[in-house]
Amino acid sequence: MNYGGQMLSEIAFSDNRLDRADHMRTDPERLTAMERGGTALVLALDGLSPVLDAQDRLVWNAPCTDFGQRERVFLGLRDGVPLFVLVPEGGDDRPAYLQRPDWAAISRLSADELALYGGARSLADWHARHRFCARCGAPSVLTKGGWQRNCPSCKAQHFPRTDPVAIMLVEHEGALLLGRGAQFPPRSFSALAGFIEPGETIEQAVAREVFEEVGVRTHSVSYVASQPWPFPSQLMIGCHAFARDRALIIDRTEIEDARWFTREEVAEAVEEGGDTSSFRAPPSTAIANTLLCWWLEKEGQGAA
Amino acid sequence: MNYGGQMLSEIAFSDNRLDRADHMRTDPERLTAMERGGTALVLALDGLSPVLDAQDRLVWNAPCTDFGQRERVFLGLRDGVPLFVLVPEGGDDRPAYLQRPDWAAISRLSADELALYGGARSLADWHARHRFCARCGAPSVLTKGGWQRNCPSCKAQHFPRTDPVAIMLVEHEGALLLGRGAQFPPRSFSALAGFIEPGETIEQAVAREVFEEVGVRTHSVSYVASQPWPFPSQLMIGCHAFARDRALIIDRTEIEDARWFTREEVAEAVEEGGDTSSFRAPPSTAIANTLLCWWLEKEGQGAA
Repeated sequence: MNYGGQMLSEIAFSDNRLDRADHMRTDPERLTAMERGGTALVLALDGLSPVLDAQDRLVWNAPCTDFGQRERVFLGLRDGVPLFVLVPEGGDDRPAYLQRPDWAAISRLSADELALYGGARSLADWHARHRFCARCGAPSVLTKGGWQRNCPSCKAQHFPRTDPVAIMLVEHEGALLLGRGAQFPPRSFSALAGFIEPGETIEQAVAREVFEEVGVRTHSVSYVASQPWPFPSQLMIGCHAFARDRALIIDRTEIEDARWFTREEVAEAVEEGGDTSSFRAPPSTAIANTLLCWWLEKEGQGAA
Repeated sequence: MNYGGQMLSEIAFSDNRLDRADHMRTDPERLTAMERGGTALVLALDGLSPVLDAQDRLVWNAPCTDFGQRERVFLGLRDGVPLFVLVPEGGDDRPAYLQRPDWAAISRLSADELALYGGARSLADWHARHRFCARCGAPSVLTKGGWQRNCPSCKAQHFPRTDPVAIMLVEHEGALLLGRGAQFPPRSFSALAGFIEPGETIEQAVAREVFEEVGVRTHSVSYVASQPWPFPSQLMIGCHAFARDRALIIDRTEIEDARWFTREEVAEAVEEGGDTSSFRAPPSTAIANTLLCWWLEKEGQGAA
């Protein structure tokens, strides 16, 4: 991948090779024909967690020809084969963020299956948590192959959510500002991040979040890369910014700690990742890891 | 504004100078003190439309000290003065997209008041359309100064939506691809655009939307700028991409028409904006207009 002259390592959850075939979503006859055609595959899930076979591949349940009343989402076509995911009937009461056991499973999936699982999980989770019309409270009905819900009562239309999040590397004279949340594993630090709010640009969200969390004023915000993050459904928008100075006023209600790291410390954490480095870098599935690699390479080229 | 070495003209709805004072949202005592302090101003709205005074400024209702049971959103502090917007009691049944009469009003507002109105409108509209818990159907309750709703029944938490939309200039050997929707004013063309779906990056959404709408394959997608668009609450993510060729296969269910325009045609439409140009450019409040200006300047610098 090449963005703005910088080579980026592959971004997890983004290698989606599926043909989304969106024109089929709006064609009930073709949807029904696909469902009954004898080739449709259904993604196996344990709740919303992936199910892997002995070769660390996603498990697909045998071709299904009768979904009955089960809510399902048409994910798209893979080599002409229609792929579906069922909406968990009882919903999912667990927190939507990434659970520890799932970390291990997703780290074993291939890039394209990880992307496939991520998209399917986001959609199944959205339906499970949005069975009622937010406008009038009546039960809503899945439509358009699972890419919409309609309210039969007030006629409102509802669409799957994608929540944009700004995640940013903040740099000052060759050093990088990273922070850690209270729920992070020991010694882990990562890029600061926060939801983009109504009424602000990406660049404004970066500046606001950094100031709120660590009291640092920034300038020259630039976009680096993005990633779909399916826990539950964020669009991670990776940015870079320069800090005006290094004085930190940490908001402990938002983060547990924040520190400046030298280029050498960041390189050691990313490349060795072991217990000897001064901190633990985020896992390679996180765009924060990609951003750190991008930064090290940029610095290495003297492009800062 | 300066992004990636390119100067951008001011982006409408983005000049937000308000201190969002997010720490006050989570502090019920300070919120109550602000509401009763005698300085709180409430934005005047006609439904969700702005109300302007004779000087084309937003009208603020006299300091309010008793909101009663009315749902309200704490927008932030302007010169220390707390600003609020009330949620329309009956909701708003009109379509959430920008209505024709509002075009005229918003074109008269100053940049900072336009941003203020946009953010307030997005939040008021979200509450008006999300009074019930999407998870269980029970009425939900506004909290955190209007930046969250909680469900007293199933305990679900709900947050204002911001829907990321990719909007893109597609270029081929110095010409630009623009399209028009069926609802556009006569002779108007603008940048292609579409919602970013769960499971895709910004760059993938650009490529997918362009291929779906006009059958053109693209490469070298790059980010240009973003804009909050409050009808109802989009984050417009402006991009640029190169087309592999100019053959168009237009999906008439999505757009009415699409055409390639020369640099001269684009310049004429943006600069003159009159009836003599070969098409009508989008209004200056739309990021599509900003993107066209950016492209003309980039081309002018021979940077393409």
